[in-house]
Amino acid sequence: MIELVSMSGKGSNFRFKKLNGDIVTQARIGVIHTPHGDIETPAFVPVGTQATVKTLTPEEIASVGTRLFFVNTYHMYLRPGIAVVKAAGGLHSFMGWDGPIITDSGGFQVFSLGRRKFVRKNEDGKEETSLVSISEDGVEFQSHWDGSKHLFTPERSMQYQWNLGSDIHIAFDDCTPYGVSKKDAEASMERTHRWAERSLREHKKLSSLKGKPYQALYGSIQGSVFEDLRIKSTKYITSLDFDGIAIGGVAVGESKVEMKKVLDWVTPLLPSDKPRHLLGVGELDDIYELIAAGMDTFDCVQPTRLARMGIVYVHSGSKNQNPNCVIDLTKAQFGEDFTPIEKGCTCYTCTHFTRAYIHHLFHVRELLAYRLATIHNIFYVNRLVFLIRESIKDGSFGKRYASFIKGRS
Amino acid sequence: MIELVSMSGKGSNFRFKKLNGDIVTQARIGVIHTPHGDIETPAFVPVGTQATVKTLTPEEIASVGTRLFFVNTYHMYLRPGIAVVKAAGGLHSFMGWDGPIITDSGGFQVFSLGRRKFVRKNEDGKEETSLVSISEDGVEFQSHWDGSKHLFTPERSMQYQWNLGSDIHIAFDDCTPYGVSKKDAEASMERTHRWAERSLREHKKLSSLKGKPYQALYGSIQGSVFEDLRIKSTKYITSLDFDGIAIGGVAVGESKVEMKKVLDWVTPLLPSDKPRHLLGVGELDDIYELIAAGMDTFDCVQPTRLARMGIVYVHSGSKNQNPNCVIDLTKAQFGEDFTPIEKGCTCYTCTHFTRAYIHHLFHVRELLAYRLATIHNIFYVNRLVFLIRESIKDGSFGKRYASFIKGRS
Repeated sequence: MIELVSMSGKGSNFRFKKLNGDIVTQARIGVIHTPHGDIETPAFVPVGTQATVKTLTPEEIASVGTRLFFVNTYHMYLRPGIAVVKAAGGLHSFMGWDGPIITDSGGFQVFSLGRRKFVRKNEDGKEETSLVSISEDGVEFQSHWDGSKHLFTPERSMQYQWNLGSDIHIAFDDCTPYGVSKKDAEASMERTHRWAERSLREHKKLSSLKGKPYQALYGSIQGSVFEDLRIKSTKYITSLDFDGIAIGGVAVGESKVEMKKVLDWVTPLLPSDKPRHLLGVGELDDIYELIAAGMDTFDCVQPTRLARMGIVYVHSGSKNQNPNCVIDLTKAQFGEDFTPIEKGCTCYTCTHFTRAYIHHLFHVRELLAYRLATIHNIFYVNRLVFLIRESIKDGSFGKRYASFIKGRS
Repeated sequence: MIELVSMSGKGSNFRFKKLNGDIVTQARIGVIHTPHGDIETPAFVPVGTQATVKTLTPEEIASVGTRLFFVNTYHMYLRPGIAVVKAAGGLHSFMGWDGPIITDSGGFQVFSLGRRKFVRKNEDGKEETSLVSISEDGVEFQSHWDGSKHLFTPERSMQYQWNLGSDIHIAFDDCTPYGVSKKDAEASMERTHRWAERSLREHKKLSSLKGKPYQALYGSIQGSVFEDLRIKSTKYITSLDFDGIAIGGVAVGESKVEMKKVLDWVTPLLPSDKPRHLLGVGELDDIYELIAAGMDTFDCVQPTRLARMGIVYVHSGSKNQNPNCVIDLTKAQFGEDFTPIEKGCTCYTCTHFTRAYIHHLFHVRELLAYRLATIHNIFYVNRLVFLIRESIKDGSFGKRYASFIKGRS
């Protein structure tokens, strides 16, 4: 029995309905309404960094059960450029997707991964170097394409996301790097709070312009791995008039144990009537924990990145359920395996092709390989989240979660 | 008015109906019946070298109007191996395609491109070196993957194609390299004839085994650029009991003028009741000539290879028709071009995406780019051939052909 217990939104095109929650854990189900349609939560959010969920058409994105995906403002800013997307009529029109889209502030890419010269891995695992410098105004950084210099500020980030036309925006934050001193973490958090206010002010200014449907803005909580900072940041960000809450700085090097701690500190303080997004976290073995901690949406590149390496998920929904089970289709053992990736899986890949065929495609480096594996992996995660959503509805999530914890230990 | 004028086939699962032909040229329409469905001719045959038409699913292959495509026996032999495809239940089952498939003998790859060490370009334009040595028995060659040695003979080629389960096979021939002396060309042709007989004998032996639908065998005409040799080869190959005729050795370095000459010598001598395939030729500006010369099917990698480079066909069916017109979507000029690749084109790509979006995908090296361009290019060629087919039906082909010749000069 679904019961409406709270609702956010301002009569705008964006609102969140929290439906009933789990009794044992903080898991909850809800619906996020956006101008481009509804998102049932909890929901996994795949990453479409460059205005494409790698290898998939918009129809395929929908067919694997995805309602909402992530596009990175930083990438759009550099290529093709915000002006091009705006001229195209926004991201939806540009990429031919009429469902909801969430963009980030650009902060994570331009800034948070390092203070000076840093080396990071891009979406395909290749190392890149870059330079960033921070001021109170914003962040100056170098393009990873051509080394040219650029400045992002809270105001600019809001303008960029506004012009991209995504349904959900994220406030520009100082994504605290992992391993800094508490003093540095605090300074970074305080800057995040000042930037949150500037983001909100700019967003309201843009929202007051007529002729566009309302685009939602999530505030971002920082505070690194320090309990009092996380609590302070949570209290501050939730005191502002954001449409939803993003939890940042969790995917930047912390261990899964630390991630769980952060969620334990933060989530009890979150208002129940606003949607919550966990930034950059959502590996297969995280999903139960995130949902149990009360997360509504979470984005992660794992399913798509692993797929392109030939690594696919198996054993969803089986009795010996191990949500972290993967097989590497590039291994010789699959060369004559004429079964689908997962028996009983109803995704396009599993209903049409065998492991042997996909192994062959990877072996001879055919582009279709990456697509077929991507379809399966996103479908797999979406199906897992769907089953979890259903279990929250029917009250069996606690049992399912306990079984997951037991199976993992 | 379509009139049935001749029919080949032996009450088997394979037969060819020649319908009416053009009055002015040798252009003709027909239907090839195979155990996996009919092919209206003339038909362009895309290349799916490694049991995949690069980037496309089987549904997409069908959706662009393709009924028949090519798979290369040599590639299947090396990876995944004939035994694997056989164990999968044949190519159709292995790759999830239930329409007709044509395979080649493997000869073109293992042998014809050189006698000793040779350098050739693979499907992606990269140079590869290999070694081949010929005997009366067959051809020994080195794998382009790992350098291991292998032997192809006419008998083995037939067995491989039989096990692949393709609908149309090609006899194992000595594909004469370009630029050899007449003496060498003649010796090569004579070997082709002896191998044609051996191929036919083995094919009949395999066909007498019960429980499988009939698979057709085309004999292959050689003779290089020498008129008397081509005539001799045509007379000889057409005297044998093949289901269809392939014209080989035309794509191996000859100029388009020489190709036309070869067709002028060969086609008047071909029986009208057997289907004819031109091997490895079918660039956009060849298509009118091939069809005017009476070809039924022809395979070419051009549309798919160009697509992966970002080069797409435009101007099909327009008044200023230039069938060789292409644009390079990677050029900066398309960065803000919010029109489809071709206005009015009804392919998936043109009805869903703009040049600007596809330019962006190429610019940031997203895999979806290659697929969208491939879909358009194959659709474009298939549509051109469809329009030509219709014009042969309604008697306007001669006029259309004359207009093409005029537009080109």
